[in-house]
Amino acid sequence: MDGNRVIGVDLGGTKILAGVIDAEGHVHETVEHPTPMESEEALLAGLVAAVAEVRVEGVRAVGFGIPSQIDQRTGTTGRSVNIPLANVAFRSFMEERIGLPVAIDNDANVAALAESGVGAGHGAKSMVMLTLGTGVGGGIVIDGRLYRGWAELGHIVVDEDGPPCQGNCTGRGHLEALCSGIAADALAVEALGPGATAHDLVEKRHEALAIVGHHLGNGIGTLVNIFNPELVVIGGGFGTAAFELLLPSAREIVRREALWPAGDVPIVVAALGNDAGLIGAGLLALELAA
Amino acid sequence: MDGNRVIGVDLGGTKILAGVIDAEGHVHETVEHPTPMESEEALLAGLVAAVAEVRVEGVRAVGFGIPSQIDQRTGTTGRSVNIPLANVAFRSFMEERIGLPVAIDNDANVAALAESGVGAGHGAKSMVMLTLGTGVGGGIVIDGRLYRGWAELGHIVVDEDGPPCQGNCTGRGHLEALCSGIAADALAVEALGPGATAHDLVEKRHEALAIVGHHLGNGIGTLVNIFNPELVVIGGGFGTAAFELLLPSAREIVRREALWPAGDVPIVVAALGNDAGLIGAGLLALELAA
Repeated sequence: MDGNRVIGVDLGGTKILAGVIDAEGHVHETVEHPTPMESEEALLAGLVAAVAEVRVEGVRAVGFGIPSQIDQRTGTTGRSVNIPLANVAFRSFMEERIGLPVAIDNDANVAALAESGVGAGHGAKSMVMLTLGTGVGGGIVIDGRLYRGWAELGHIVVDEDGPPCQGNCTGRGHLEALCSGIAADALAVEALGPGATAHDLVEKRHEALAIVGHHLGNGIGTLVNIFNPELVVIGGGFGTAAFELLLPSAREIVRREALWPAGDVPIVVAALGNDAGLIGAGLLALELAA
Repeated sequence: MDGNRVIGVDLGGTKILAGVIDAEGHVHETVEHPTPMESEEALLAGLVAAVAEVRVEGVRAVGFGIPSQIDQRTGTTGRSVNIPLANVAFRSFMEERIGLPVAIDNDANVAALAESGVGAGHGAKSMVMLTLGTGVGGGIVIDGRLYRGWAELGHIVVDEDGPPCQGNCTGRGHLEALCSGIAADALAVEALGPGATAHDLVEKRHEALAIVGHHLGNGIGTLVNIFNPELVVIGGGFGTAAFELLLPSAREIVRREALWPAGDVPIVVAALGNDAGLIGAGLLALELAA
């Protein structure tokens, strides 16, 4: 490994994953730590420490995928639904603390960047990605480029006046409220009893997952009717683990909801697994270092 | 009027409106004829005749807004719900018959182009437009440019498993099924009795329109969470007439559904009225002639 190497950092609601990424998008040394949730200060310190831990000589830039809204002009994070981070001048803070150029984008955008660059959507000119994890996010590739706008795909309305959304979101019936790992946990408790989780539903191949797939199909239907992508990629911890069990009911609903012929759009599982955020953050940093 | 002048043609389900448009988007001579519905051949001949009727010396290109899906690579029209036109190599046919460069796009896209170019969204870098008429359509401006993709905004899912959509669409609870003029007609019958129409609801300022506004707010919430536009423009025959009566409940729901601070996005009525399609078709042609 020489030449362009960068650090990618995937900040999630439960863990921080940091690693060294080379110019081909390959992952080298990585570290993983629980996300400090007690305060914004602790969270930022945890990120700086993770970068320091993996940093090797010759690293030229650092990219962060963050589960927050981002204002790219200022490098500031807006509200974050699941982590203690709001209105921080994140990019300049990190550039100062780390001493390297820093690129940031939201976690779902970086995952989509990774999947479109070196993953399941490699070569596709248009793609919609949905990440089903603690929350639900997404990214959109249009004309071969990642759409760097808002793209809060977890907050499309699927079931108006439906169940309340998560965290600070005041919406109802959002995709995130219906298809996140947390939503699946709640479904698991209902189906299997107290203490059960989404993981148990997947392990038992429980039919309750068809309900999640049904909601997911409606969300995909909306996005397909807007973007008519070449493919839809499903990622995130829960989405990846449950993919095969969600797909049949999701596919059935996409066929019903999507305008012809978009209902036949391929729906595939993310190829990069838990590394998508890390790799995408690295690709962001590589753009800076190029 | 000199320099760049073009012809814009708005092909609707009931009439063809053609006119000369100057470089500022101003409309000059226009003609209006009923849309020939007896055959595809008659329809195409009617369009050629309308162009010939308004054509003046120095016209450099012709733009058409068509109520059909369009394949921009080939210039071919796909399915058309309300007119006898399907799978026609429209652009090359017209270029040959008229002897000028021809641009085409679907009717909702050209209306959005007009509103963003010289109408309610003038100067906006990003805009979502929804046209509520017989059906529901829409257009999206991203980074100052009209998104020329699929953008079937009337077919986003608002209420999963809700009422069946219109025409050939097999979806349920789509924006079009809930907020079109036809949907409002059905609501009018429910609220006022047999024979009542959306027009009566508007005239009586009937509270049932708050239900349409509620659905509309959910649809806008979805689009705002994806695109975070500078403004949302509501057009179309029903949308324009009912705008003030839909707005209070739509605004309330957008505030609830949209991620902060996008819930405060301005929601305004279209400025160009029935000329939006004509002007947008002219702007398409001006792009060609530039």
